[in-house]
Amino acid sequence: MYKLPIIIALATLGLSFSPAQAGDAAAGKIKAASCAACHGATGISANDMWPNLAGQKEGYLALQIKAFRDGTRKNPMMSPMAAGLSDADIDNLAAYYASLGK
Amino acid sequence: MYKLPIIIALATLGLSFSPAQAGDAAAGKIKAASCAACHGATGISANDMWPNLAGQKEGYLALQIKAFRDGTRKNPMMSPMAAGLSDADIDNLAAYYASLGK
Repeated sequence: MYKLPIIIALATLGLSFSPAQAGDAAAGKIKAASCAACHGATGISANDMWPNLAGQKEGYLALQIKAFRDGTRKNPMMSPMAAGLSDADIDNLAAYYASLGK
Repeated sequence: MYKLPIIIALATLGLSFSPAQAGDAAAGKIKAASCAACHGATGISANDMWPNLAGQKEGYLALQIKAFRDGTRKNPMMSPMAAGLSDADIDNLAAYYASLGK
C-alpha cells in the first residue's frame, strides 16, 4: 500500500539503493599512482608475494585498505601506505582497481 | 670460474631454481572443495566482501593462508578454515587458485 510513496520520497531525497562502496574510479586512478610500483600499472603485481588487484571485489579492496589504515591488518609496506587515506580515497581506489581487467 | 661445476652439481642433485611455492594444483583442487562456498567454484567469490582468488599470485595466496593459520592475519571465517592445513595443503591450494582463469 505505502511502498510506492516511500520509494518516491527516497528518490526525491536523492537516496539510492547501490552498495555502500560507490567510489569514483577516475579519482581512484589518480590516487593509485603510488600503488603502481608494487601492484603494477594495470593492477597486476610485479612480485609473486604481492597481490594482483585488477578486477578484485570493490568491497573487499575497501575493507582491506581500511584494515591496513586502522591497524587491524598489519603489513610493513601497506600500513604506512594506507595511513594517510580518507574513507573517500579508499573507496575511490577500490572502485578503480575493481574496474580494471574487466 | 667455479660457477658451471656448481650449477651442474646442483642439477645433479635435482635442485631447481623455481620459486619456493611449487604446489600441486590437482591436489589443491580436491582440497578446495570447502573453499568454494565462499570463493566460488571457479575462484570468483559470491560476495563483494570476499576476495576473488582466480589467477591471484601463488606466493601471495600461500603467504596469506599461512598467516590465517598461524594467527598473524585474523578473520572469523578464514582463521578456522586454515587452522588444520599443512604447509603442503596450503601450497597446493595456492597453486590451484593461481592456475584458474588464465
